[in-house]
Amino acid sequence: MIEKITIIGMGLIGSSIARNIQQHKLAGTLIAADRDTAVCEKVAELGIADIVTDDLARSVEEADMVILCVPVGAMRPVVELIAPHLKDGAILTDTGSVKESVIKAIKPFCRSDIEIVPAHPIAGTEFSGPEAGFAELFDGRWCILTPLPETSIRAVEKVTQLWEGCGSIVEIMDAKHHDLVLGVTSHLPHLIAYTIVGTANDLEDDIKSEVIKYSASGFRDFTRIAASDPTMWRDVFLHNKESVLEILQRFTEDLTALQRAIRKGDGDYLYQRFDDTRAIRKEIIDQGQD
Amino acid sequence: MIEKITIIGMGLIGSSIARNIQQHKLAGTLIAADRDTAVCEKVAELGIADIVTDDLARSVEEADMVILCVPVGAMRPVVELIAPHLKDGAILTDTGSVKESVIKAIKPFCRSDIEIVPAHPIAGTEFSGPEAGFAELFDGRWCILTPLPETSIRAVEKVTQLWEGCGSIVEIMDAKHHDLVLGVTSHLPHLIAYTIVGTANDLEDDIKSEVIKYSASGFRDFTRIAASDPTMWRDVFLHNKESVLEILQRFTEDLTALQRAIRKGDGDYLYQRFDDTRAIRKEIIDQGQD
Repeated sequence: MIEKITIIGMGLIGSSIARNIQQHKLAGTLIAADRDTAVCEKVAELGIADIVTDDLARSVEEADMVILCVPVGAMRPVVELIAPHLKDGAILTDTGSVKESVIKAIKPFCRSDIEIVPAHPIAGTEFSGPEAGFAELFDGRWCILTPLPETSIRAVEKVTQLWEGCGSIVEIMDAKHHDLVLGVTSHLPHLIAYTIVGTANDLEDDIKSEVIKYSASGFRDFTRIAASDPTMWRDVFLHNKESVLEILQRFTEDLTALQRAIRKGDGDYLYQRFDDTRAIRKEIIDQGQD
Repeated sequence: MIEKITIIGMGLIGSSIARNIQQHKLAGTLIAADRDTAVCEKVAELGIADIVTDDLARSVEEADMVILCVPVGAMRPVVELIAPHLKDGAILTDTGSVKESVIKAIKPFCRSDIEIVPAHPIAGTEFSGPEAGFAELFDGRWCILTPLPETSIRAVEKVTQLWEGCGSIVEIMDAKHHDLVLGVTSHLPHLIAYTIVGTANDLEDDIKSEVIKYSASGFRDFTRIAASDPTMWRDVFLHNKESVLEILQRFTEDLTALQRAIRKGDGDYLYQRFDDTRAIRKEIIDQGQD
């Protein structure tokens, strides 16, 4: 158990961590901080923290661990604000979907005694806000830690214990590698889903209403993904630019090849590509990830 | 009830219709035909038809209604083979995902007394074959009919009754319009899913294994869609070429604009596009299609 934990940012992820800390007694005292007073009021109403405040700087003063659950783009200003108030040897961790740029953004503000343990719980829903959180969100889901070379093993172990307490399975990875892997598994799929739903949204009204009516034929799955928080995803793409653009380039080439095959009526090429993709699905099922 | 129905093609869709006809007594006699003897054996074993045969021509001789459940590309050769054997005034219907090209492919072989009622049940899973079928597949799902100007109302009503008997909600639509709407809701999403899974499949082995491991973060949903039958989908793209290429062109333009915004760091544009797409999701939920 950790004596005092402060969570900054009480949206879907922050409030779900808070619920876990409370239910599984993972901290002596839990302080929930959010600069939005409406969110603070909602958190107080939900009763999922011991102390609720909109004063971010003061919220971290006695914390042994601070968990940043704000959009990736907000990491820098938040850490600039709270860093001078961090307790000696405090553990600073986060839940951002991008890791290299978060490290770059927050490290310059942290004294050498601050233990930085970047983390990314691979879990979420298309809903946002403190009411959307729930304790089971992380059950059996991966949480990737990307500690710095100077981070102590002790600090990594404490963050590992927190996430295991939330039900996650913890993996350690290099930050750059994390950003590439997640670029493929998460960021590109979200970008594509946003694009396809946006394309449909731009259609003439009469067709659009039918697209909604018959959405169960494939389109619907994309709308769920594309209903995710726009601020969070804007920040992901701005902060994992390099990996996303690289993988997007490969995707575009592959799509162009399929487009050409359709135009030329090259059925053999289409069949071959469509048949190849079944192998990946089989591996996902074999590994129990379906 | 219809006296005699013949289903040609006993895969996921054909076998699911057969199960409905059997369970809800929608026909006096049900004949199941498939040119693949292994499929015929499996159908006989499952006991989901009164007669099972691999002789397509003879299978239709006494049928009041013939339902073609073969891939879109196989419609033409199958109808060329069976048309001379169709009973006077028989109803010929199908389950293809594309309608205009199917009409063009089969109409030239049909005598004027044959009632053509093209149909498209909007239902399916990523599994194939007669064992994959189940009676509830069509429950509460749309089935779109695209009758010809010369089709009789009586014939449309009989096909409507069949699909309502299978649990579907029937809609009538123009074939060309159907192909455009389904191009957006179904064909483009499948093409994109096949592309993204193909892009991942081409990655270096070490990254690929991690993509599978962390697939729950978005990628997994695409692999399910991209595990659909490759022959069926090859035919859909070859036969709905015009609509698919048109909507793909719009998609590519939208994707290029997002790519440019990421490269330029234009957060406002990204936010706006990501926020716009939430409206469609809301409408889908409001209409109970989620």
